[in-house]
Amino acid sequence: MSKDLILLTPGPLTTSAATKQAMLHDWGSRDKSFIDTNARVREQILAIANAGDDHVCVPLQGSGTFVVEAVLGTVIPRHAKSLVLINGAYGKRMVRMLEIMGRAFATLETPEDTPPTAQALDAALAGDGDITHVLAVHCETTSGILNPIEEISDVTAKHGRHLIIDAMSAFGAIPIDAGRTPFDALMASANKCLEGVPGLGFAIVRRQVLEAAEGNAHSLSLDLFDQWRAMEGNGQWRFTPPTHLIFALAEALNQFAAEGGAEARGRRYAENCRILTDGMRAMGFRTLLSDNLQAPIIVTFHMPADPRFRFQEFYDSLRAKGFVIYPGKLTVADTFRIGCIGNLGADEMRAALDAIGQTIKEMGVETGAPAAD
Amino acid sequence: MSKDLILLTPGPLTTSAATKQAMLHDWGSRDKSFIDTNARVREQILAIANAGDDHVCVPLQGSGTFVVEAVLGTVIPRHAKSLVLINGAYGKRMVRMLEIMGRAFATLETPEDTPPTAQALDAALAGDGDITHVLAVHCETTSGILNPIEEISDVTAKHGRHLIIDAMSAFGAIPIDAGRTPFDALMASANKCLEGVPGLGFAIVRRQVLEAAEGNAHSLSLDLFDQWRAMEGNGQWRFTPPTHLIFALAEALNQFAAEGGAEARGRRYAENCRILTDGMRAMGFRTLLSDNLQAPIIVTFHMPADPRFRFQEFYDSLRAKGFVIYPGKLTVADTFRIGCIGNLGADEMRAALDAIGQTIKEMGVETGAPAAD
Repeated sequence: MSKDLILLTPGPLTTSAATKQAMLHDWGSRDKSFIDTNARVREQILAIANAGDDHVCVPLQGSGTFVVEAVLGTVIPRHAKSLVLINGAYGKRMVRMLEIMGRAFATLETPEDTPPTAQALDAALAGDGDITHVLAVHCETTSGILNPIEEISDVTAKHGRHLIIDAMSAFGAIPIDAGRTPFDALMASANKCLEGVPGLGFAIVRRQVLEAAEGNAHSLSLDLFDQWRAMEGNGQWRFTPPTHLIFALAEALNQFAAEGGAEARGRRYAENCRILTDGMRAMGFRTLLSDNLQAPIIVTFHMPADPRFRFQEFYDSLRAKGFVIYPGKLTVADTFRIGCIGNLGADEMRAALDAIGQTIKEMGVETGAPAAD
Repeated sequence: MSKDLILLTPGPLTTSAATKQAMLHDWGSRDKSFIDTNARVREQILAIANAGDDHVCVPLQGSGTFVVEAVLGTVIPRHAKSLVLINGAYGKRMVRMLEIMGRAFATLETPEDTPPTAQALDAALAGDGDITHVLAVHCETTSGILNPIEEISDVTAKHGRHLIIDAMSAFGAIPIDAGRTPFDALMASANKCLEGVPGLGFAIVRRQVLEAAEGNAHSLSLDLFDQWRAMEGNGQWRFTPPTHLIFALAEALNQFAAEGGAEARGRRYAENCRILTDGMRAMGFRTLLSDNLQAPIIVTFHMPADPRFRFQEFYDSLRAKGFVIYPGKLTVADTFRIGCIGNLGADEMRAALDAIGQTIKEMGVETGAPAAD
């Protein structure tokens, strides 16, 4: 069997052999071995956010979007009003969910390369007393931008409003502390920085908030209160859990702890990001974001202006060399993206840079002088 | 590592080594190898129901319940009225979904050991012209009862109403033909009779019905129209797919075809069921259902009257011997369940019977004279 492609994407991503091998068994979903492992996974996730007994971790079947929708539907009371901070597709997606659910909302939108400011959030909250909840994306995978979640949290708390954080692509690499950055709920997924496999998300929710959330949800499957209450009752999932994915996550969490937790993982990803960005700039590529706005998760590059650069050809040629990159998702500029996360280190990033350099040469593309940005 | 427990449950179930080994890779969700495999899986599922170009297969992240809710939310117009046929927990669960969605419905309920009759359905449809959709469960896993889906289909069609079939635990073992038994939608899961791993469901939907379903759904994540339209567009999933589970299902479908499809699989399960039922009756256990009502999926047994029979002790002792059975779910009688599905044959069923016989002896339980039922 040929070697797996290296995934330089925001997930599914390259996972370790041990994580995948953890799926080589079958477990009964109402049996002790599964119940025990599920409980341990939930505790370990809480600990990553330094969240104690006043929070609970509720896992959910499906992609990250499922758990985002479950939190919005369950945790925000039906007649509450949300303020959604938007600078990319994932902020917009939360708006779409609220529209479908028929919930009230306002938006505070900035360009895809611009984080919201504390001043603008302060003014928005001061100007609309109906707003009860602020919805923010920690790292917007659309561009790779890191939003200032602590400032957002401070302003939200100052106004006595509730904060919900979509930490999908940040959790496990960009430390967050439930004490320092209080939130009602934080959502993430098994197959981002925790390096599990896809099909499983989770939320960390303030216990008091969840206890009061009965009957809010617009959906049975996405009712996080019901999911939690059943699991608290007998340790089991309400509906068939993705058993293999839970065991893969349990193994991935062991590796996460062995590496040194979110700080160590964040350092490895930051090093991946630095190698990638330096190398690409040396070849003349330009990043969308300046370094101070860049999360070490996924980097957006402008397409070279040279008409000989065709993205599909670039993609296919890199794939033939063993690397999968990611198309752009921006509305404002022609870009592509390269991820820094997964079970990858400096060697893989350098090999990717070699493949990119070779491909550019084969395509005869002029990328311009080395970029300084 | 110790040998895996044998799962005599309705899923997650015992899968083949090859199916699990198919998960030992990582794939990009927007890359050709995943897109091609996903397309092939969708086609193979359609073929199992003998459904041609006038139907589509739409996979969905999550457990079977997620895809049931997605179909009800998407395929049934918002102001339509459903008639739910109930004789167990899964019929009741559909009612709960409709309640949460605020959709109109009526019910036709029979006891858990009794299928609905054609006459009763005929009268219900004749008596309520507002009913547009009939919702039926093919095999009710609550009891293991096989509902008369062809009769239900005939009566529904005679009245010009639409049929939706929850075929979760029947699909792939009890043949169904989209020509003979017309339906608007049929829902099932990767980890029942197709013997994949859990975390992935799918619906087979009449193309014309789905094309008209835009804007019906109560949820973004569970919007099957949106899921389908995106997949038709570029072959990709809207939101991160459970890549490993799709490849496991692809491998499981190869084994399914090699075995001889639904007829052959149904024969193997029927043989498992016969060995189990005969063996249990020989030990004095009594089945809830008479043989003519029993689907070869999961069998419900009455608890022995002897007070020395304690279910937890029985369960634990069987588990120590390598077998996982399932608690009862009936509201009307004290029962437990033993499944006949998964990558299991006569040898495993006979070994389970030996373990049960030994356990009963160890517990000193009197099961009574061999049962004839």
